[in-house]
Amino acid sequence: MDYKDGAIEKREQLYEGKAKKVYATNDERFYIVSYKDDATAFNGQKKGTIVGKGVVNNRMSNFMMRLLEQEGVPTHFVEQLSDRETVVHRVEIVPLEVIVRNIAAGSLSQRLGLEEGTPLSCPVLEFCYKNDDLGDPMINNFHIYAMQLATREELAQIEEYAFKVNAFLQKRCAMAGVTLVDFKIEFGRDLSGRIILADEISPDTCRFWDSETGEKLDKDRFRRNLGGVEDAYAEIRRRLMGEE
Amino acid sequence: MDYKDGAIEKREQLYEGKAKKVYATNDERFYIVSYKDDATAFNGQKKGTIVGKGVVNNRMSNFMMRLLEQEGVPTHFVEQLSDRETVVHRVEIVPLEVIVRNIAAGSLSQRLGLEEGTPLSCPVLEFCYKNDDLGDPMINNFHIYAMQLATREELAQIEEYAFKVNAFLQKRCAMAGVTLVDFKIEFGRDLSGRIILADEISPDTCRFWDSETGEKLDKDRFRRNLGGVEDAYAEIRRRLMGEE
Repeated sequence: MDYKDGAIEKREQLYEGKAKKVYATNDERFYIVSYKDDATAFNGQKKGTIVGKGVVNNRMSNFMMRLLEQEGVPTHFVEQLSDRETVVHRVEIVPLEVIVRNIAAGSLSQRLGLEEGTPLSCPVLEFCYKNDDLGDPMINNFHIYAMQLATREELAQIEEYAFKVNAFLQKRCAMAGVTLVDFKIEFGRDLSGRIILADEISPDTCRFWDSETGEKLDKDRFRRNLGGVEDAYAEIRRRLMGEE
Repeated sequence: MDYKDGAIEKREQLYEGKAKKVYATNDERFYIVSYKDDATAFNGQKKGTIVGKGVVNNRMSNFMMRLLEQEGVPTHFVEQLSDRETVVHRVEIVPLEVIVRNIAAGSLSQRLGLEEGTPLSCPVLEFCYKNDDLGDPMINNFHIYAMQLATREELAQIEEYAFKVNAFLQKRCAMAGVTLVDFKIEFGRDLSGRIILADEISPDTCRFWDSETGEKLDKDRFRRNLGGVEDAYAEIRRRLMGEE
């Protein structure tokens, strides 16, 4: 039985993350994700609310994943139920933050002593081990094999998709006068064991800079107390999706 | 002109590191390395002296590099001049600490929450960017390409040699009742641009554990104030080289 429009009912909450809740449904192949306005930063040390963020992130993530499917990147997206809720394929999350960087910013700038805004001569892919107690430490392919977090085949697939997502998002951003600085994505294994893009693509998980002015149009406005957080989320929604 | 026994004269000091001095010679193709007894740990925060360490490290490094040449790993070793001094090929050091780990210990245990002594299901290769101001941060292949620290070809060569060194040292240690936990090596480009093994292989740069008792026979005795530092260096020299 394939997914049938409108036949999915929300059941018990399985998980509450920093920005989303995940629910079981009446069909074991699907989950429902519900996006919150809660914002956290620095591994949960800073907390706040960005009014309307859940709506922007839900809609933008679904918008991008629909397009990425056409680019050959399978995703967890199934159907948008409402402004904040979406049906997704049930996955087992690979416990890796997959980061792609085009320009030095944030933790990379600090770690390598590169001034924020320094273009990187090639895109940089990083993996962090998703583990709050350890502070999501950066790891490399060999750590991933040794800790058996993913197989060599899975990781090769993840790398290929990550660079595809980067190429797609860069192009999309450029059309909208936006520079894609970096982003974080996550992958999961679906019920057949296939690697698919999961989690979200949003101003919470990407650094977007206005290509002309350098103005930040993403969660760094919240992290760094720059003000105008809600306006930035509205602006990037308008630019990348044409939505008011 | 090839290297001619006894024809090399020491000239001005080029560099003084934490454990070695490097001198120019009358032949621009060669340097002379002089091993000190100075010991430092934790990026220079802890300082001390290990009497006789320079002799052990010089002799062991040369001993291992001679054997590694036979295993197909080119090295900077040319000729041992004395207990503390050795003629080496002049290289430009690739600014990477190349670490290979077989068992979790030290920074890996801390970073990944793995108890010291946990065997890794496959050898783990790590790169750290040699930069004291930044605290030698761990980086991955993409950072290396983006910062142009080494080319893709050079890095592939370095990885191949690092695993060869690990296989060789593991075998050699096993014969002597010693477990090779991990080690750090460095590579350089010789005057023709070829990648060769440089720096040293010694109890300063390897973790050696007695295979029966787990006793540490390396610099961790100094780092962790375990006492018996000089005895450990003498013991590992005896075990791995048959020298008293």
